[in-house]
Amino acid sequence: MNVYIAGVATTPFGELWDVSPRSLANEVVDRAIRDAGIEKNDIEALFVGNMLSGMLGGQEHLGAFFSDALGMHVPAFKVEGACASGGLAAHMAIMSVLSGQYATVCVLGVEKMTDHKPEDVSAALAGAGSDEERMSGATFPALYALLARVHMHRFGTTQEQLASVAVKNHFHASMNPNAQFKNLLTIEKVIQSSMIADPLHLLDCSPISDGASAIIVTSKPSYGIHPIQVLASSVATDTLDIARRSSLDELRATRIAAKKAYNQAGISPKDIQVVEVHDCFTIAEILAMEDLGIYEKGNAAKAIEEGKTRLDGDFDCVVNSSGGLKGCGHPVGATGVKQLVEIVEQLRGSAGKRQVPNPRYGLTHNVGGSGATAVVHILCTNRQ
Amino acid sequence: MNVYIAGVATTPFGELWDVSPRSLANEVVDRAIRDAGIEKNDIEALFVGNMLSGMLGGQEHLGAFFSDALGMHVPAFKVEGACASGGLAAHMAIMSVLSGQYATVCVLGVEKMTDHKPEDVSAALAGAGSDEERMSGATFPALYALLARVHMHRFGTTQEQLASVAVKNHFHASMNPNAQFKNLLTIEKVIQSSMIADPLHLLDCSPISDGASAIIVTSKPSYGIHPIQVLASSVATDTLDIARRSSLDELRATRIAAKKAYNQAGISPKDIQVVEVHDCFTIAEILAMEDLGIYEKGNAAKAIEEGKTRLDGDFDCVVNSSGGLKGCGHPVGATGVKQLVEIVEQLRGSAGKRQVPNPRYGLTHNVGGSGATAVVHILCTNRQ
Repeated sequence: MNVYIAGVATTPFGELWDVSPRSLANEVVDRAIRDAGIEKNDIEALFVGNMLSGMLGGQEHLGAFFSDALGMHVPAFKVEGACASGGLAAHMAIMSVLSGQYATVCVLGVEKMTDHKPEDVSAALAGAGSDEERMSGATFPALYALLARVHMHRFGTTQEQLASVAVKNHFHASMNPNAQFKNLLTIEKVIQSSMIADPLHLLDCSPISDGASAIIVTSKPSYGIHPIQVLASSVATDTLDIARRSSLDELRATRIAAKKAYNQAGISPKDIQVVEVHDCFTIAEILAMEDLGIYEKGNAAKAIEEGKTRLDGDFDCVVNSSGGLKGCGHPVGATGVKQLVEIVEQLRGSAGKRQVPNPRYGLTHNVGGSGATAVVHILCTNRQ
Repeated sequence: MNVYIAGVATTPFGELWDVSPRSLANEVVDRAIRDAGIEKNDIEALFVGNMLSGMLGGQEHLGAFFSDALGMHVPAFKVEGACASGGLAAHMAIMSVLSGQYATVCVLGVEKMTDHKPEDVSAALAGAGSDEERMSGATFPALYALLARVHMHRFGTTQEQLASVAVKNHFHASMNPNAQFKNLLTIEKVIQSSMIADPLHLLDCSPISDGASAIIVTSKPSYGIHPIQVLASSVATDTLDIARRSSLDELRATRIAAKKAYNQAGISPKDIQVVEVHDCFTIAEILAMEDLGIYEKGNAAKAIEEGKTRLDGDFDCVVNSSGGLKGCGHPVGATGVKQLVEIVEQLRGSAGKRQVPNPRYGLTHNVGGSGATAVVHILCTNRQ
């Protein structure tokens, strides 16, 4: 059985003070359904990706909550895996269609973070890591700073190369009407921004965001004007804390999930023209490009610096055309779904100013915690 | 493709002060794996049912957390749907096997509630309901009390009939070594216990509990000494709050999920010999027996009072042989998984003192909130 993404939609990401999670969800789900050319009652189940609504808002039971809010009353599920919640919800939805239990389902990724005090958001996000890391005050910027230091030490990666990830992603975001940050950056500006956790400056870090994204997953090739086929959906996990990992110059979960995905899809990294990776920090994009096998270990930082992943560069493949987590924003539960929305737009040829020329294959990469969970999807267009 | 439950295990339920969620999980998963006669590395994915770890313990990302704690590092997912989290995790696991993505997976339901202040637990549990219910102080005992009042008014259901559910379930629990409450009750004792929300007394309510349960779901009929086939797994949702429902003498989500499950299984309610239902309050068991179609609407209370669902009675079918949520305990995320453990034990003929004679079909019924989510499974033994 083939599985397709027939409809997609995303809200703008950013500080959305004047809307509730309910209205964000209503907006994207309605638009995704219309984009698929179907009716609400064609949706047989709802998969909600969200991390923080319980801890920050006291609201759990989000499957029933949103199926009710959307007026659907279908089987509904909340899937949580920290910042990979959206990707995991999509994986579950794809499995549910492959199982034959549901023909057409909706994946909704949604998060509302800016209504809360930053210290409460930080504390809640620490729930993605281990007890030991929380107790020792090792926040996610601190953990990724450690990974950056290892990479700099082992491969000579520079602060300028880290900064070039943020510069590229803001450039891409400047062409994305839904992006949180449309301002252009320079290497100097990133390096001169406040130090958060050495060597990561403020502008090496993705922001706190609100937003929602939705996709319609179906086994029916007739849905949507231009359905995009899901060739692979894979998940892997690693230790929750980085202290017990055998190597700190890679995210092993990404390597395992990627290998499985390439096998499922029957393609290799060099076949991919457009990729959305989980750049929660600039170092994370460099690790991702290597762990996904798009560059050899130790070669990604230089390639990114040279514009090899930038839409206006002499690119091998375009990375984070949406602006990524850094430029487009990172409403945790929505991120993994937004990545799929962006790749579908690219494969349809409907990505506007940020369109990559004629891509055939695209990949998404969504991470939870400091790499304890990784989710990889490979999509394909049949357009000639 | 057929799907089987090849291994099961549960910890005792109760106030488990001296163990962590990690050790509860290790114990049940190890035992379930051994029960299936397989090795840990035969498990290809982990589905965790849990509601409260984020709100009460600040720990999310439980898929990766437990796959790490169990030394598995397989694809791992947390599935949440309030008190139906365990049943939903099982549904996801079954779909994942039917999809062909995973051949053998583990479902872990786990909850640790008694370490926290009762008022914090109550506040967290209210996260299963609607904003409006929370804001008006309508706790779950209050909501189920309203449903009980409607049932009493419409069908003449009595306090004694409500109490007879608790009396039966404590009687069954007295034969279950894993049950939280093994003491026998009387109708008088239930009615004389403190009033919680009129007409529900303390002993009409299920307790706060700790515990964990696990099952091994597989497509391989050769696993386990006596694999039990999953004939149906279905989910339905309704409005989150009871105020907007068209009828208050039923849980519509149960009716929809049950109808779908009977269709999938190709059987009718009268074929079932043993049932685990979601008796979070005594009225909930009465509603469940009617909404599952085992008794006509308005007839269940009398049947229960007459011993028609009691192991030592002249039973039509035995209900909550484990003791149910009332007698065995209700560690939220574990409950839906424990129900499956109990039915598997019954269909294997290994339920000891509480064994129902030669059951062929068994059913589980798990509810989230005041009926916004319902999950129904139907299992079958091929034993002659």
